[in-house]
Amino acid sequence: MTKIAIRGYHLDAYQHVNNARYLEFLEEARWQYMDNISQEAYTRLNFSFIIVNININYKSSVTTGDTIRITTEVEKIGNSSMTFKQQIFLDGTEKLVCDASVTFVILSNKTGKPMKIEGELKSLLLKGK
Amino acid sequence: MTKIAIRGYHLDAYQHVNNARYLEFLEEARWQYMDNISQEAYTRLNFSFIIVNININYKSSVTTGDTIRITTEVEKIGNSSMTFKQQIFLDGTEKLVCDASVTFVILSNKTGKPMKIEGELKSLLLKGK
Amino acid sequence: MTKIAIRGYHLDAYQHVNNARYLEFLEEARWQYMDNISQEAYTRLNFSFIIVNININYKSSVTTGDTIRITTEVEKIGNSSMTFKQQIFLDGTEKLVCDASVTFVILSNKTGKPMKIEGELKSLLLKGK
Amino acid sequence: MTKIAIRGYHLDAYQHVNNARYLEFLEEARWQYMDNISQEAYTRLNFSFIIVNININYKSSVTTGDTIRITTEVEKIGNSSMTFKQQIFLDGTEKLVCDASVTFVILSNKTGKPMKIEGELKSLLLKGK
Repeated sequence: MTKIAIRGYHLDAYQHVNNARYLEFLEEARWQYMDNISQEAYTRLNFSFIIVNININYKSSVTTGDTIRITTEVEKIGNSSMTFKQQIFLDGTEKLVCDASVTFVILSNKTGKPMKIEGELKSLLLKGK
Repeated sequence: MTKIAIRGYHLDAYQHVNNARYLEFLEEARWQYMDNISQEAYTRLNFSFIIVNININYKSSVTTGDTIRITTEVEKIGNSSMTFKQQIFLDGTEKLVCDASVTFVILSNKTGKPMKIEGELKSLLLKGK
Repeated sequence: MTKIAIRGYHLDAYQHVNNARYLEFLEEARWQYMDNISQEAYTRLNFSFIIVNININYKSSVTTGDTIRITTEVEKIGNSSMTFKQQIFLDGTEKLVCDASVTFVILSNKTGKPMKIEGELKSLLLKGK
Repeated sequence: MTKIAIRGYHLDAYQHVNNARYLEFLEEARWQYMDNISQEAYTRLNFSFIIVNININYKSSVTTGDTIRITTEVEKIGNSSMTFKQQIFLDGTEKLVCDASVTFVILSNKTGKPMKIEGELKSLLLKGK
């Protein structure tokens, strides 16, 4: 679970967090989820996450002084793609700010082609931190 | 139609334009589409665009030295919401980089409630620049 | 003191944190410094921070996997302006990544004019969190 | 000379362009200045621009509906470093929004060491577009 305090530089002319900034927040949460994968494992398994789709619903707005809480869960796992379900809540409440499905392909850096999600890679992706 | 030259600061660790940055590119293209609405009309009609959903497919990547071309069209128009279909191409080609559906609600700044899309507002939103 | 883990979306084409992103990191650290000022005090004292100068030295680069540590200290305090000295270190070491002097004017939101830094305002600005 | 229309996503909680965003605007202007350097010349000369200092004065603010005009000139050129003087004006006027000195070192990608600014490299850097 990731917490981010909303600051003035996250807002736009509407005084709300800008739609693009939420994608950085979601990416930050996925990096934290992936913090269980060591640098050694990244180097050895030698793969990249290639985002193929993001479908995000903006449900309510947040502003300076708010803190958000982001949850990241595996929604679906296929042969070489997987989908995270990510939800952003106003911290301390169950009020939903955004929910998103983020779909990736796992690419082998060696071949440049999609990589089968199995074995160690699969268990690392499923576990999260 | 909007053209943007891809620069080093648009890229991320993968040497491709970051997923969040594309949402800024799409927003830029919508601002250009909306440039036909004068400041006078904004003030008089007194509304805000509230994004409720973005569904974006990342099809191919672009990097420094590339230029992208963004098209923005009305995909659907409802009572108080509308959806833009936006496509990003590698300029000079028909190669699709991203396509996205971006759905808004039009909010009245006076009442804070959704506003009926009709009359002058509707024709401004449909026309674009 | 602020800590930020460097992620792929912070980097640019050179695989280093982009020069503009550091200004967001410094702003984040100033927000954390200012977290001792309650919403109640902000509303009552009713002021804005207006940056007038940033002088930043980029000393060494950081990349994905690194964590940075940011320190924020008052360098100078004048009648209605103040300067923060901010330093970014590679966390766990004394290696300097950036140092910056950031100068503000304190503006009264009521009058739109510079506000004298004295009394409660001064002690809040000097103390930090 | 570079022109940028200010949009809602460039602003922050103060309804002005955020201090960090200006550094992206300045970088964009430098890329446009450097557009005279062909991809072929970049590859052949094989160098990187490493920013070592930015000293920026924020003089007046701009907001949605404004357009800015950025000028980029060589302020100083040394053995292996150079400084650009960049100024941002409210377009259509002589009103100064920002001025900045941006100092680089030119690094050889082959040796990882500073490169002498002379010959073809020097004339490309001095000329701009």
